[in-house]
Amino acid sequence: MNRSAIDIPGYTYGTTEVAPSPATLADLEQLKTSVRFTQEDEHFLQLAGTVLDDQVEAIVNHWRSQIIAGIPHLAKHSRHQDGSPLPDYLARSNLRFQQWIRDTCQRPYDQDWLNYQHEIALRHTPVKKNQTDGVVSTPHVPYSDIVAFLAVLNETIRPYLAAKGHDESDVAGMHSAWCKSAHMQMALWAKTYMATQSAGATP
Amino acid sequence: MNRSAIDIPGYTYGTTEVAPSPATLADLEQLKTSVRFTQEDEHFLQLAGTVLDDQVEAIVNHWRSQIIAGIPHLAKHSRHQDGSPLPDYLARSNLRFQQWIRDTCQRPYDQDWLNYQHEIALRHTPVKKNQTDGVVSTPHVPYSDIVAFLAVLNETIRPYLAAKGHDESDVAGMHSAWCKSAHMQMALWAKTYMATQSAGATP
Repeated sequence: MNRSAIDIPGYTYGTTEVAPSPATLADLEQLKTSVRFTQEDEHFLQLAGTVLDDQVEAIVNHWRSQIIAGIPHLAKHSRHQDGSPLPDYLARSNLRFQQWIRDTCQRPYDQDWLNYQHEIALRHTPVKKNQTDGVVSTPHVPYSDIVAFLAVLNETIRPYLAAKGHDESDVAGMHSAWCKSAHMQMALWAKTYMATQSAGATP
Repeated sequence: MNRSAIDIPGYTYGTTEVAPSPATLADLEQLKTSVRFTQEDEHFLQLAGTVLDDQVEAIVNHWRSQIIAGIPHLAKHSRHQDGSPLPDYLARSNLRFQQWIRDTCQRPYDQDWLNYQHEIALRHTPVKKNQTDGVVSTPHVPYSDIVAFLAVLNETIRPYLAAKGHDESDVAGMHSAWCKSAHMQMALWAKTYMATQSAGATP
């Protein structure tokens, strides 16, 4: 993945604009141990990356238009506070959402990755919500909304993992690796939420 | 399920010893919407309850003896602070862990269920860790340890769901419902952790 080739508004992965994560590489090793993330999972995530690469737009449209749009308490987080649409915000956020799928599969899980997990979480808390795109939307996304909706992401990604004709054991392997990564990310985002609670985030 | 028939040390589900959850039934409905938990999932959880009922001891032994025991940063939470075993604590905790599987599948998700989710989370924070069994172990379990290890619970429960000969679509349905419940529970536990942060819990 060529960083300089990724031109997405507000996407700052690996740049000096991203603050250091409170989580260390030692924390990451513990998380990998806790979810039992192995080299086989790394292999399957890379495979998932090739399978999903040309599907990320369809996947995010599925999540946003077919699911989130029908759930007012989730949809409001990318709308004006009066509930009216913010199409530019949604469009930019969708591009970053697409890139998040790629990053989950293709990036090495190193300090840059940890730092960007912290950045992603901060952008859902009162510390940085809305700032990247200069909008006035909900002041933050409750952590519980994120954890709950991850169940839907994990479930609905599976048919896309199977869409390129891989056999069932490979699809199961890709899906298992994806879910382990999701749990590591939820754990990392929780660290950020808990560290910023004094800033007014609510669970 | 006959409450009076459940005689497990420290198991207080549905009793006046359990404090009210900060989460309301309205919060629960939002969580169900976010994870897309439907009547079909309720049906599949009930089915999972019948499938798992006589396997809970084997499942918890698998989790504790074959997995957690080999991960020092998780195993320490049910040991003395010097790392030596606390066999009585582990035994009681295992019985409650077994009952948690049953409760996840068979209990109605109502205010009693919400309250006990709060109680379960409190027992992992500095507010109530060790109190139920009167032991001196780690002062709390970091929330990130719980979220990370849930990935393992979700993955390893699947063969047990398949162990009674149900067809693949029923097993997939049971597993999906289980995972949705796990995400709702992680969301509820996070509320408790974040509400108790002033008590010294760390993420």
